Amino acid sequence: MGNYTDLDVKAINTIRTLAVDATAQANSGHPGAPMGMAPVAHVLFNKFMTFNPKNPEWLNRDRFVLSNGHGCMLQYALLHLFGYGVSMDDLKNFRQIDSITPGHPEAHDTPGIEVTTGPLGQGFANAVGLAIAERHSSAVFNKPGYELFNNYTYAFFGDGCAMEGIASEAASMAGHLQLGNLIMIYDDNHISIDGDIKCAFTEDVMKRFEAYGWHTQHVADGDSDLDGIEAAIKKAQEVKDKPSVIKLTTTIGFGSKLQGTGGVHGNPLKADDIKSVKEKFGFDPEKTFVVPQEVYDQYHKHAAEGAAAEQEWNQLFEKYGTEFPDLHKDLVRRRSRDLPEGWEKSLPTYKPTDSAIASRKLSEAVLEAIHDVVPELISGSADLTGSNNTRWKKAVDFQPPNLGIGEWSGRYMRYGVREHAMAAVMNGLSAYGTIIPAGGTFLNFVSYAAGAVRLSALSHQRLIHVATHDSIGLGEDGPTHQPIETLAHFRALPNCMVWRPADGNETSAAYYMALTSKGTPSILALTRQNLPQLEGSTLENGIKGGYTALEKEGADITLVSTGSEVSLCLEAVKTLEEQGLKARVVSLPCWEVFDAQPKEYKLKVIPDGIPSLSVEVMSTMGWEKYSHEQFGLNRFGASGPYKEVYKKFEFTPEGIAKRAKLTVDFYKDVKPLRSPLNRAFQQLI
Amino acid sequence: MGNYTDLDVKAINTIRTLAVDATAQANSGHPGAPMGMAPVAHVLFNKFMTFNPKNPEWLNRDRFVLSNGHGCMLQYALLHLFGYGVSMDDLKNFRQIDSITPGHPEAHDTPGIEVTTGPLGQGFANAVGLAIAERHSSAVFNKPGYELFNNYTYAFFGDGCAMEGIASEAASMAGHLQLGNLIMIYDDNHISIDGDIKCAFTEDVMKRFEAYGWHTQHVADGDSDLDGIEAAIKKAQEVKDKPSVIKLTTTIGFGSKLQGTGGVHGNPLKADDIKSVKEKFGFDPEKTFVVPQEVYDQYHKHAAEGAAAEQEWNQLFEKYGTEFPDLHKDLVRRRSRDLPEGWEKSLPTYKPTDSAIASRKLSEAVLEAIHDVVPELISGSADLTGSNNTRWKKAVDFQPPNLGIGEWSGRYMRYGVREHAMAAVMNGLSAYGTIIPAGGTFLNFVSYAAGAVRLSALSHQRLIHVATHDSIGLGEDGPTHQPIETLAHFRALPNCMVWRPADGNETSAAYYMALTSKGTPSILALTRQNLPQLEGSTLENGIKGGYTALEKEGADITLVSTGSEVSLCLEAVKTLEEQGLKARVVSLPCWEVFDAQPKEYKLKVIPDGIPSLSVEVMSTMGWEKYSHEQFGLNRFGASGPYKEVYKKFEFTPEGIAKRAKLTVDFYKDVKPLRSPLNRAFQQLI
Repeated sequence: MGNYTDLDVKAINTIRTLAVDATAQANSGHPGAPMGMAPVAHVLFNKFMTFNPKNPEWLNRDRFVLSNGHGCMLQYALLHLFGYGVSMDDLKNFRQIDSITPGHPEAHDTPGIEVTTGPLGQGFANAVGLAIAERHSSAVFNKPGYELFNNYTYAFFGDGCAMEGIASEAASMAGHLQLGNLIMIYDDNHISIDGDIKCAFTEDVMKRFEAYGWHTQHVADGDSDLDGIEAAIKKAQEVKDKPSVIKLTTTIGFGSKLQGTGGVHGNPLKADDIKSVKEKFGFDPEKTFVVPQEVYDQYHKHAAEGAAAEQEWNQLFEKYGTEFPDLHKDLVRRRSRDLPEGWEKSLPTYKPTDSAIASRKLSEAVLEAIHDVVPELISGSADLTGSNNTRWKKAVDFQPPNLGIGEWSGRYMRYGVREHAMAAVMNGLSAYGTIIPAGGTFLNFVSYAAGAVRLSALSHQRLIHVATHDSIGLGEDGPTHQPIETLAHFRALPNCMVWRPADGNETSAAYYMALTSKGTPSILALTRQNLPQLEGSTLENGIKGGYTALEKEGADITLVSTGSEVSLCLEAVKTLEEQGLKARVVSLPCWEVFDAQPKEYKLKVIPDGIPSLSVEVMSTMGWEKYSHEQFGLNRFGASGPYKEVYKKFEFTPEGIAKRAKLTVDFYKDVKPLRSPLNRAFQQLI
Repeated sequence: MGNYTDLDVKAINTIRTLAVDATAQANSGHPGAPMGMAPVAHVLFNKFMTFNPKNPEWLNRDRFVLSNGHGCMLQYALLHLFGYGVSMDDLKNFRQIDSITPGHPEAHDTPGIEVTTGPLGQGFANAVGLAIAERHSSAVFNKPGYELFNNYTYAFFGDGCAMEGIASEAASMAGHLQLGNLIMIYDDNHISIDGDIKCAFTEDVMKRFEAYGWHTQHVADGDSDLDGIEAAIKKAQEVKDKPSVIKLTTTIGFGSKLQGTGGVHGNPLKADDIKSVKEKFGFDPEKTFVVPQEVYDQYHKHAAEGAAAEQEWNQLFEKYGTEFPDLHKDLVRRRSRDLPEGWEKSLPTYKPTDSAIASRKLSEAVLEAIHDVVPELISGSADLTGSNNTRWKKAVDFQPPNLGIGEWSGRYMRYGVREHAMAAVMNGLSAYGTIIPAGGTFLNFVSYAAGAVRLSALSHQRLIHVATHDSIGLGEDGPTHQPIETLAHFRALPNCMVWRPADGNETSAAYYMALTSKGTPSILALTRQNLPQLEGSTLENGIKGGYTALEKEGADITLVSTGSEVSLCLEAVKTLEEQGLKARVVSLPCWEVFDAQPKEYKLKVIPDGIPSLSVEVMSTMGWEKYSHEQFGLNRFGASGPYKEVYKKFEFTPEGIAKRAKLTVDFYKDVKPLRSPLNRAFQQLI
């Protein structure tokens, strides 16, 4: 066994039996992957990774991502053994309600979990984001003699992740970016839920990674060749200009009677198998959740080395502060997730007399104005830079310097046409702790990234989707590109701010909230077409998520709208006036933020006593929360010049006025007529 | 030029100038790809493809997919030249409102367009589906001397598609399946919207396809080497056991002053450039939309050959009818998209005394019961067969026979962990015309496929997503797997039936509607946990999308619910009774179908005069359409045994009763209290 002793084997078997016991106790979970990957985890964590369990937030720690997140008992066992805040009771509460050991790893809830994984392929792409973040942070902060950032990102993934498109996208990106600080272990166990992968997955995975520009290796005996595993990881570390993947052939559920079969993938072991496993490993078959003291000792020793390393780093960082006070201050601030004091003064503001501008251009103006004062902001686009307007004029691309088209310190990402990976890479960038990512695509194609956006929200990542071409207003590209259901989808997603600003001040407000909300992702739905600057719109109003854009005494109706339709509603007010009806107008750029305002304020905006009509050129779904009647588009759009498309669907002052009148008439007899915000009970949140 | 003459070049330049003129007239669109790919299109369509423009539905036509759908002027020009129902006026109306030449190709609207493309990567995966469909159909219907099916599927794709994860997934699947009838042309023009692809996409694409098991070739001069193109396609046809990709190096915008740059990708050419292009090609620079008669003649001649080929096929098929009357009848029926007469008698029905069963198992029972009588049904799963319960007992896998694990005639697809490709492949399967596909994954991961599901709806494909583990009721897997926003998302998507059946009869009803709705995809949200068989539930009630599950005279409130919560509501009725309140219960398994019922019926189900409360363990978004108050879950779920998770969020008879009482009290003073279905005006549809 070369460098390894019986103690190492005992530690590995401890991890295996913990996974067996926890899944058995929960009567649920995946023992197979932890049992198969315990050896590589043992070697990687003890021989290569530097981390301090007492401070899981230390900036230069090595990152670990379990992309095959269903094997999370592996990770929970490791966290426990090393002394993170995961107790034996937590392991015993695996997959139980309100535990910190849920069915798949959740970054926000469990100390030591870097990113939330389980949905396959996500962790793979998160790891690419973490590696990019290190590359960028070292380029920005490292100085001769001060290697503040030099951590590696390690990730495990299985056949499931390897099959997912998001992982393909991220792997292609990582190869292009020459991320030598990224080392992945491919658990080549030949088993997925449907059994042997020969029924669906017979490609040459390593050849594919070579095609992406990765360094590849194969360790044939992942079950017991600890020296081989160590040598491969070491070799991978030495490859500086390529990401590395090590194909590790393992036996899923190693030690079980069903090892090497689908039977150990997603089901706990049966009682007699558990006994047999423990006997095989020299553990007492009658006892559960056993950790030999010498295993604790070994792991705690490595944890202490990590704590010492952080100590050393802290001293270096302090010294760095005397030589580079500005950079030191900047990094301390970034770590706190606060923005620089007064940064918001750079946000552009507009007067009603300013010219009409598309909100994608208004977004560009924000990025242009704030990129110097918010240095942690890294923009980018999924190959729609000129359409998303995501690039400030002097931006430098984030690229390997040897390509001659950018720098590691560059702050503009060329994500390629890879929307799903972009969103998941942004999750990794945000999780690293020194970066706020913003990435552009058409709003319609944020749907390609739905899986990753969901995890942004669940794991409380601060990032921004610059989602332009937000409606039928994009015109000629037609129904394949015109969002109908998209806003409803993401408005229904918890902890996700969906903004649809109506003008310049609201666009600045959207950025203000997106950047200052430390634990919430934002989607900014922005127009292709020009929008006038509105009378009642201010930064202060905008950041409330909703406000009265036009007040009218004795109003007969409230028109509630967002984005490009707010100015249409203001025009409709005049049309209604000609018909003897008084209308007031509310702009509601962000439901999530408006919902959080005091009820008293909200009822001033959408008051009792008069009916309200919502106006938005997409699905009406959900608008009943803010209006009595809804004018929207519950069908697909049309290809044509945008003004004609709007006309086709009656999104004109006349079309709005017609429906407003019907609404006023319909609600005349209802007493009392309550605001839709007045509800019988509060929702659970 | 070998086999080619000046006429061929003239034809190619005709296509190019048509693309130039149409994009210029629309002042919108993508001339670059049509100009670059006109040569390969000319060779492919004239030398290899068999089709009859007068009958675009002929079953054995060769299929063509433009995965880089933004280049659709290429396709529209071809359709026009060959004499499909696309006139010169249609070309002149490119990207205009209500034209049949929208900004991206739409299958439902334009004769000769097989699948709806534009969203990148989709067409690539559709093509894989079309090729699978041919393989399957020939295995089922071909007999010695009767090669009814032997068509090829050809597809063009560019760098954008090559970067998309969905295309990677589909390519891996196609390689595994050894689809020798699939030939793709990769437009290697080095340009995407952000400019030279060196900024984001530097992998070795052909090596990657080799890794997938594809046959690869390279034609270095795609601009003028017509013989080389022909030879490569010919070679690809000869490779019977592998899909083929031909990397074709072309010059984007060939002929333009800006050729080979991003400038011709997504913008019309400038006036002087248009003149210069036409002069270069020997066209009159003052004229627009010019087609030399000899070009028409050449194309019409090939069209006539296609018509003759169909004629020959029709004769063969007639003769086939005498030898194989049953198969003949079956194919004629499939072509009509009607189901076999009386098939619905096979649908399982249940009595309230039958045992409680999870709806994923009820779905399995449907598949078991109907697979013999609906032979066009092809089931499958994205590697969750045992969890989705998508496989009938005697199912044979669709696999290349040489693998020894299935047959081409097999009706069970092993999609692998590739949700997005699965959905898009199903679009291709459905578009072929002889198959109704059903594919399983967890409901939460249908979101990975959102881009493809959207196109199912837009292009009117009949297919079924078997979406199990539909809520927090999945329990231990936790928030990463528990849908919250998913139903709201797909309910907001036009032309998509979202079903959440409450028991066995409703599950059968969902399948009945899914299979008989010829132009609408369905998502069946199914439980992991057992559900009791309900009293009021029948097939007849279910297929109305909503019905009164429990009527109660003098009711104080209507409880409106779906799926697993309907039986909880029925229990809550008893709790409320103890509190002196009378409640009636409505089951609403499918909004889309319920919405289509007569208003009179709907108002009987959710009547005026009493308030209603919706109960569903996920986002409340949209429920305001059917209820005055909503009880749902507008936050992420929790990991734990499902009954405990339900309890945590108060989804118990008591929790429902509590909110019902608050609702009754709140609406006591409102007169008149209208049903939420009573609206001021109708939505546009």
